[in-house]
Amino acid sequence: MSQGEFDFISAISRRFAPLLPPDMEGIGDDCAVIPAQGDEAYVITTDMLVEGVHFLRASASGAVIGAKSLAVNLSDVAAMGARPVASLLSLALPPSARGEWADDFMEGYRALSQRCGVALIGGDTVAADEAVVVNVVAVGRAKMSHLKRRSAARAGDVVMVAGELGASGAGLRDILAGRFDTAAARLHLAPEAQIEQGVWLGARTEVHAMMDISDGLASDLRHILHLSRVGARIETTAIPAFGGDVETAVCGGEDYKLLFTVCASAAQALAADYAERFGSEPYAIGEITSDADNLSWLRRGEVITPDWRGFSHY
Amino acid sequence: MSQGEFDFISAISRRFAPLLPPDMEGIGDDCAVIPAQGDEAYVITTDMLVEGVHFLRASASGAVIGAKSLAVNLSDVAAMGARPVASLLSLALPPSARGEWADDFMEGYRALSQRCGVALIGGDTVAADEAVVVNVVAVGRAKMSHLKRRSAARAGDVVMVAGELGASGAGLRDILAGRFDTAAARLHLAPEAQIEQGVWLGARTEVHAMMDISDGLASDLRHILHLSRVGARIETTAIPAFGGDVETAVCGGEDYKLLFTVCASAAQALAADYAERFGSEPYAIGEITSDADNLSWLRRGEVITPDWRGFSHY
Repeated sequence: MSQGEFDFISAISRRFAPLLPPDMEGIGDDCAVIPAQGDEAYVITTDMLVEGVHFLRASASGAVIGAKSLAVNLSDVAAMGARPVASLLSLALPPSARGEWADDFMEGYRALSQRCGVALIGGDTVAADEAVVVNVVAVGRAKMSHLKRRSAARAGDVVMVAGELGASGAGLRDILAGRFDTAAARLHLAPEAQIEQGVWLGARTEVHAMMDISDGLASDLRHILHLSRVGARIETTAIPAFGGDVETAVCGGEDYKLLFTVCASAAQALAADYAERFGSEPYAIGEITSDADNLSWLRRGEVITPDWRGFSHY
Repeated sequence: MSQGEFDFISAISRRFAPLLPPDMEGIGDDCAVIPAQGDEAYVITTDMLVEGVHFLRASASGAVIGAKSLAVNLSDVAAMGARPVASLLSLALPPSARGEWADDFMEGYRALSQRCGVALIGGDTVAADEAVVVNVVAVGRAKMSHLKRRSAARAGDVVMVAGELGASGAGLRDILAGRFDTAAARLHLAPEAQIEQGVWLGARTEVHAMMDISDGLASDLRHILHLSRVGARIETTAIPAFGGDVETAVCGGEDYKLLFTVCASAAQALAADYAERFGSEPYAIGEITSDADNLSWLRRGEVITPDWRGFSHY
């Protein structure tokens, strides 16, 4: 679910709250949760992408847009600790996008679906006058006890990220400057959802809160702090910043790396196990504090006051 | 799910078929089906509406568009014999639609959600340059054995519709002529999903195939015939046509009345029970034949050859 500033569905979700059945979880996390069989749950999320706002047909092939549209939703599913199993796709296509572009889009969507074992179970195709609009719904499945929520961080937890940050933001700058063939540009256009990492972290009880970083560390971490009623101290020198650019790592969006908090006493063992499974350790970048909603940035232990605002990419 | 001619997601669904888990049903019916708890299933559907193609902001208030966006999806859920329980809403809003229009849209969406007991469990709001785009996902729930599929019609079944047809098409003509206050225009703008009827018919084993009429009787009945490998003979004088206009009743879309087939020996009793529950009988308009994909139109028993093509409203 997008977390742009203009998130007025979240703002009005209170008005819908009385309608929520007691066995469902609604708006506020990466996915909604509805009960499945036995001790399992489905998670479900949706994201809309608009041509000219989220992508340009001139900057990327249909296949790249198709794969990215799905990937950003799979990332939301993984961020709950669930495995994606199905998707629904709605496409509004202006005349100029029918035929070749649409076929190319679907081939990119299908190839990623196949690679991740995700069935396409529904959809809609409609006409549009000018802009392509894509809406994807992803459905995942997990044991209820494996689900990770933004609200579960606890004071004392270690804050970790599962990969480098800032490459996507740097890539967007490259693309806007007309450089489409850089490593960063490719990462921006083809983000990889950390599905196996999310499922693996979901099964670990020492992992408390989790989400994916879609709007930037600064912006997204605040959601965990707010919903968990905790604060955090983040050591900026520990942030795995692409090209050493900490500001882009913190404020750039669309990296789709997992951000999670781990019980301090178990963090070292978890990092070692994670490295054994995935080849390298996640990055410990700070700690959760009891100081609700207070996010402090440190440089070698000293509090600094950077002028960082979350990058709103809607 | 829209059934417009340009339904290329359906066309390519074969390429995705190998990915479908054995316990799910994918593209082809009003909804996909995924297993829920015990002997229950979830059904899930999505529809996208684009300003300028499916609606005009000048012709209807935000609240009317909000309610209709949800209603057409609830109708797909009811057409499976399921009760809608939750929805997800994605909205692309150009600057001119933010504020008052968007608030009005949400109030219409919320009011219908409340009336039908449907929780809003997720969504996304994004910016757009010009056109409002709405994508709704509806989730329903039913006993697995109550689900009605388009593929279940049998030779000899009576074909029934659960209400008058053609009012929405007549209403669209009124609106395009600038007459917004007619009864037909109001029906076009505020279609009512036959939820209770769908749930009730779902529980009746003598009801075989069911779908909702979104693209017109002529077009939609063909889906049942094709998927059930049967034919039909429809008595045009028996069609409940708004204002006596049979052509609009057959070819106009967006009436959202349930179309279903019933075991012939049980049809009369079913109609009487239905009338006791809902106040009036459903309309028996013809019979299913074994002549696959052959749809015959009759006038007082004589075959006629009207020049009707399904109304494609995308």
